[in-house]
Amino acid sequence: MIDGVEKVLKEKGKLIEKEIEGVIPRKGIPNLHDAIWYHMGTGGKRIRPVLAIMACEAMGGKTDKVLPFAASCEIMHNWFLVHDDIEDGDEIRRGQPAVWKRFGKDHGINIGDYMSEKVYALIFSSLKRGVNESTVIRLIEETIFTCSRTAEGQTMDMNLRRNDSPTERDYFQSIEGKTAYYFMHPIIGGCIVAGAKDDVIKKVREFGLRAGPAFQIADDLLDLTEGKGRDEIGCDIKEGKRTLMAVNCYDRCSLDERNNLIRILNKPREQTSKEDVLWVKELFERHDSMDYAAEKARSLVSEAKEIISDLPEELKNILDQFADYLIERKK
Amino acid sequence: MIDGVEKVLKEKGKLIEKEIEGVIPRKGIPNLHDAIWYHMGTGGKRIRPVLAIMACEAMGGKTDKVLPFAASCEIMHNWFLVHDDIEDGDEIRRGQPAVWKRFGKDHGINIGDYMSEKVYALIFSSLKRGVNESTVIRLIEETIFTCSRTAEGQTMDMNLRRNDSPTERDYFQSIEGKTAYYFMHPIIGGCIVAGAKDDVIKKVREFGLRAGPAFQIADDLLDLTEGKGRDEIGCDIKEGKRTLMAVNCYDRCSLDERNNLIRILNKPREQTSKEDVLWVKELFERHDSMDYAAEKARSLVSEAKEIISDLPEELKNILDQFADYLIERKK
Repeated sequence: MIDGVEKVLKEKGKLIEKEIEGVIPRKGIPNLHDAIWYHMGTGGKRIRPVLAIMACEAMGGKTDKVLPFAASCEIMHNWFLVHDDIEDGDEIRRGQPAVWKRFGKDHGINIGDYMSEKVYALIFSSLKRGVNESTVIRLIEETIFTCSRTAEGQTMDMNLRRNDSPTERDYFQSIEGKTAYYFMHPIIGGCIVAGAKDDVIKKVREFGLRAGPAFQIADDLLDLTEGKGRDEIGCDIKEGKRTLMAVNCYDRCSLDERNNLIRILNKPREQTSKEDVLWVKELFERHDSMDYAAEKARSLVSEAKEIISDLPEELKNILDQFADYLIERKK
Repeated sequence: MIDGVEKVLKEKGKLIEKEIEGVIPRKGIPNLHDAIWYHMGTGGKRIRPVLAIMACEAMGGKTDKVLPFAASCEIMHNWFLVHDDIEDGDEIRRGQPAVWKRFGKDHGINIGDYMSEKVYALIFSSLKRGVNESTVIRLIEETIFTCSRTAEGQTMDMNLRRNDSPTERDYFQSIEGKTAYYFMHPIIGGCIVAGAKDDVIKKVREFGLRAGPAFQIADDLLDLTEGKGRDEIGCDIKEGKRTLMAVNCYDRCSLDERNNLIRILNKPREQTSKEDVLWVKELFERHDSMDYAAEKARSLVSEAKEIISDLPEELKNILDQFADYLIERKK
C-alpha cells in the first residue's frame, strides 16, 4: 500500500475516532447512535481519512486543521455503505449483519440520513480548529458536489443493471459518477484545507477521473480471478453487474451468446449456478474481454500518472503510489 | 390560514420552482430527476418556502436573498416524505403512488439522498444572491441542526411505536425531536437571512418548542374526529401510533384495558378492524384523554404566544396566526 498509510493510521487513528465521537455520541438514542457505532465497529480500513491527512500534510497544511474533514470522509463512506446495503439487499457487511438486517430497514434508512448530516457537522466543526469560513465554504461546496455526483452515479449504476443492451459509454458514465469523484474527495479536501491552488485541485480531480475507473475495472477483474477476498469468484455475475468485461463481450459475441449472457446476468442471485458463472467467465476469455479490461485499466493508470507529473513532489508521490496500488492489489 | 400566504404563493410560487430547477434539472438521469419532479408534481402546499419568505420580509430582509433558502426548505420537506414513505411502508402520497412504489425502494432511498444534498446546494447558491459567507455558514449550521434533530426524533418515534409501556415523557421527547425544530426551520432561516439578532431567533425556536407539539397533538385529535381529510378516522390507531391520548389513557385505564389497548395498537394495520378503532376511541373518551389532549394543545399554544409577545410586530403577527391556525384547522 502507500508508504506511510499504516504509520498515519497508527498515529492518528484515535484522533479521527475522537472527531467522530464529537458529533456522534457512543451512548445516545437506541437504534441510532448504537447502530452507527455498531456499524463503525465492524471494521473498515479508515483509508479515506488517512488520505485526507496525508494530502493536507503533503501540501504543507496542519494536521490538526484537517482532522474534522478527514473524519467527515469516513462518515460519508459509511453512510453510503449503510444505504447501499439496503438498496442492494446485502445482508452481510464486513462479516457481520448489515445495519438494516440488525436494526430494521426503517431505522437503517434514517440512520444513513442522520450520518449524512454528520458529514456536514464534522466539516462545520473545522471552524473551531481555526479553518476560516471561506475554506469551510469550499469544503462544503466540494462535499455537495461529491455526494450529488455519487448519487447520480448510483442511479446510473442501478439503471445499468437493468439495461439489456449496455454500452461501454453507459459503463464509463456510471462509474465516473459513482466512483471517480468520490475517490478523490479526501485528497481534494485535504488539499483545500492546506490552501492548495485551484490548478492543483483540478489536476487531482482529473487524475481521479482516470484512476477511479481503473480501480473499478481492477475490482471487476479481481472478482473473476481472486474473488475479492470472498470464498467464491463471480459475485458480480450473480449480482447481474454490467462490468467492462460484460459490455465489451456483449459487443463482440454472437447473438446467441449475447442472449445467454444477459439471461444469466438477469437471473436472481440465488438461481445463478456455478456453471453459469463459469460459462460467462469462459465467454469473456474467449472474446478477450478480460485482456481488454486489464489493458484499459493499465492505460487509464498511465494517463492518470501523466496528469500529475508536474504536481508538487510530495503530493505526486502519494498519488503515484495510490495509482500503483490500484492495479496491483490482490483483494 | 395566515394572512398573505396565498398572496405570497401566487406571487413567488414560480420563483421558488425556478430556484429548485437551478439545482435539479427537469430532464436528466432517468429514475432520479424525473422521479423528484414526479414527486414534486403530486402537490403539497409549498407552505414552508412561503413562511421563510414572509419571515424574512417581516424582519426587513430582501425577498431575492431568501429565495434559495426558501426553496431548500421545500426540498428538505420532500426528501423527508420520500424516505418516510419507505420507512412507514406508505404506498400512496397525495393520492398517487409514493416514489418508492413507482420507482422501486432502491431508487427511492438514493433519490432521497440526492435531495438531501440539494438542500445544501440551494443554501449554497444564496452566495450568488449576495448573501454573505457568514450568513450562509449560519444557514448551513441551522440546517444541520434541524435535520439531525429531526432524524433523532424519527428514531424516537419509531422506538415509541414499539414501546409497550409508553410514557408522556417519551411522547414529548419524540415529537419535540421530530416536529418542533423542523417546524420553525423556515421561519428561523428567513430571520437569519434578514440579519435578525440571536435573541429573536432564540424566541422563535422556543415558540416552536410549544407550537410544534401543539400542532402534533391537534393532528392526533383530528385523526379521531375529522380523519385528517382521509375517508376514515383512526388511521393512527391502525398504524399503532402512541399518541398523547394513548399514553395518557394508558396511565388512567385498568390493567385489562391497557393490555387490550396495546394489543390493538400492535396489530398489523390490515388486521385492525373498525370495531377495534371504535373501542379505542371510546376508551379515550371514557378516560377523558381526548379532552386532556385538547387542553394540552391549547395551553401549549398560549405559552407559545406568550413567548413571542415582545417580538417585532410583523413577525409576531405571522407567528400568532400560525399558532391559531394550528388548533383551528379542520384537515
